[in-house]
Amino acid sequence: MQAEQSRFDRGLDRMRAIFGPEIEAALKGLSATSPDLARCLVEFPFAEIYTRPGLDLKTREMLTVAALTVLGYPQAELKEHIRGALNVGCTQNEVLEIILQMAVYAGFPAALGAVKTAAAVFGESTA
Amino acid sequence: MQAEQSRFDRGLDRMRAIFGPEIEAALKGLSATSPDLARCLVEFPFAEIYTRPGLDLKTREMLTVAALTVLGYPQAELKEHIRGALNVGCTQNEVLEIILQMAVYAGFPAALGAVKTAAAVFGESTA
Amino acid sequence: MQAEQSRFDRGLDRMRAIFGPEIEAALKGLSATSPDLARCLVEFPFAEIYTRPGLDLKTREMLTVAALTVLGYPQAELKEHIRGALNVGCTQNEVLEIILQMAVYAGFPAALGAVKTAAAVFGESTA
Amino acid sequence: MQAEQSRFDRGLDRMRAIFGPEIEAALKGLSATSPDLARCLVEFPFAEIYTRPGLDLKTREMLTVAALTVLGYPQAELKEHIRGALNVGCTQNEVLEIILQMAVYAGFPAALGAVKTAAAVFGESTA
Amino acid sequence: MQAEQSRFDRGLDRMRAIFGPEIEAALKGLSATSPDLARCLVEFPFAEIYTRPGLDLKTREMLTVAALTVLGYPQAELKEHIRGALNVGCTQNEVLEIILQMAVYAGFPAALGAVKTAAAVFGESTA
Amino acid sequence: MQAEQSRFDRGLDRMRAIFGPEIEAALKGLSATSPDLARCLVEFPFAEIYTRPGLDLKTREMLTVAALTVLGYPQAELKEHIRGALNVGCTQNEVLEIILQMAVYAGFPAALGAVKTAAAVFGESTA
Repeated sequence: MQAEQSRFDRGLDRMRAIFGPEIEAALKGLSATSPDLARCLVEFPFAEIYTRPGLDLKTREMLTVAALTVLGYPQAELKEHIRGALNVGCTQNEVLEIILQMAVYAGFPAALGAVKTAAAVFGESTA
Repeated sequence: MQAEQSRFDRGLDRMRAIFGPEIEAALKGLSATSPDLARCLVEFPFAEIYTRPGLDLKTREMLTVAALTVLGYPQAELKEHIRGALNVGCTQNEVLEIILQMAVYAGFPAALGAVKTAAAVFGESTA
Repeated sequence: MQAEQSRFDRGLDRMRAIFGPEIEAALKGLSATSPDLARCLVEFPFAEIYTRPGLDLKTREMLTVAALTVLGYPQAELKEHIRGALNVGCTQNEVLEIILQMAVYAGFPAALGAVKTAAAVFGESTA
Repeated sequence: MQAEQSRFDRGLDRMRAIFGPEIEAALKGLSATSPDLARCLVEFPFAEIYTRPGLDLKTREMLTVAALTVLGYPQAELKEHIRGALNVGCTQNEVLEIILQMAVYAGFPAALGAVKTAAAVFGESTA
Repeated sequence: MQAEQSRFDRGLDRMRAIFGPEIEAALKGLSATSPDLARCLVEFPFAEIYTRPGLDLKTREMLTVAALTVLGYPQAELKEHIRGALNVGCTQNEVLEIILQMAVYAGFPAALGAVKTAAAVFGESTA
Repeated sequence: MQAEQSRFDRGLDRMRAIFGPEIEAALKGLSATSPDLARCLVEFPFAEIYTRPGLDLKTREMLTVAALTVLGYPQAELKEHIRGALNVGCTQNEVLEIILQMAVYAGFPAALGAVKTAAAVFGESTA
């Protein structure tokens, strides 16, 4: 049980490192409906995958921005991960390069949707 | 022509059984733009498929919640079918279990989007 | 450089022919965030593909309405292209036929989402 | 019951008109596993949708080639419908134009996969 | 470390209960390329999700057959899970009902692909 | 016309740098069916996008491996790009890390399919 506890804490630390301290409010909101999905989210992607040594955090966030752009529908998650990418060292220009490249693999509608979301994030961060 | 009429009625009965009587207003809205899509929706999924004996209605609604979670984009339809699932005997907990399991097959963004929609439905129904 | 210039102009002309003169404001908005995606959008789809002789413009817009209906998530692009389809000679009825047929290939949620978007466009254009 | 019978026959006629007489063997194969899916396929897409007057058969097949190219995975169905498109009056060049245009909406992998399938069909038909 | 060990074992037990003892050879094959994906597969879906009490195993397998039918491309995984569904108490008829229903949500190409895969599994199991 | 020629050559050079000289045979095969898709592939993704300075070539190939893993169906393109990623400096371990991370965003079936393709590439390259 102690191991489980530390797994959760390790994931939460990683989420804070990527998304900043606001992530705890978002997790609390999710937990109010589905505490198990909230726990799995912390423990599998963030404790298990994002703490692995094989790729640095900036590269991981860039890959996730690519993945969410390709999927197209999860603009709320894309918004969080564009913020996350900027937090861990991506430049705005790098985010836009990823999105532009995804036009090749998932088409222009995917890229256009992602740029709107990026614009919303960039607008906040320069405000 | 009479056979067609009864097919439509059979589908409409099934829709009322799943979604409640409000579904007729929604269908009327759809019919105002595309009467043929409205008719096909009643006659193919609901008269033809949802009346088949091989699976009970609760199981069918659970499968549909899974399908819509995986697709990710149709949150309006997912909302209707979460309501429908609850109407035909699913518990809120079962809906959340389905969504959690879909994280395995369609990824966490799909599950996170569906939980938000479930939260909106649960909020209404407990209000 | 002159060749590049004319490529961009050729694409912009084609976009105006499909979407009307308002498209320039939309492109300016996109350029404010990602000038390169804006340029690629003008130069690849519109200068390169939509100017080809093998299919007429009305057919191309119909194919695009089908494609965006199938993808499901890009409702903003679908809205533009339903407007575009009507501008280049599609009837409202043809748009609805395309969407209805897509229920066969991408399921009813895709068709239902597209009809809502079509209704919004039709509402504007008859207002 | 008679109305149902004629619905099936109407759909089967339409399938023969699009795919040629070989389609009956394919349907028999499908019926051996799932007679109900075979029947629904004949009765919904082919009796209900492909017999509608709003779009001619060539346009319908072009839209379907677009849809299947966008989906990417159903290469067996795409093969049938490229054959069908050619049967109802599409040229090979028009098929290739559709696929090329879909690179814009679903990315190059979708277009590259569809061209391989088109090449297989063209190879047969010219052999 | 002991807790981790038991998590893996719990997942492996669950996989054996669903897929039969052959699953260990498949896992060994996966481990030869990606031991971490193999471990995550055992520990997250099977130890964490498929052992939860909220839904019985037969229902979980039915939901997974629905999900994989909707996704369309993962026919190898669908094959395993149709086998799994039959192992944990689904009938062949129930598998076919699920696939037929998915025609409504993901279109006929998804259902047709899944039926071919189901036919292959049914052929084995009756041979 | 000269500018166009150099655009094509710039793209072809970039493709050779990523995929090695065998790419020309593959392009010739594609050109036999669709010379315009072949030309667009060289000129848009490779001349226009992969030559941009904002991201290095290794990062671009990593993003593409992520994108193709998420899409799931284009295993032939994924194979080429895993080869490409290794050619431009990715390690096998980095490829596997990308695929593992995509399990989070597109589910385990996407990751399992991609690992099989990676295993095929790794098998060749170590043979």
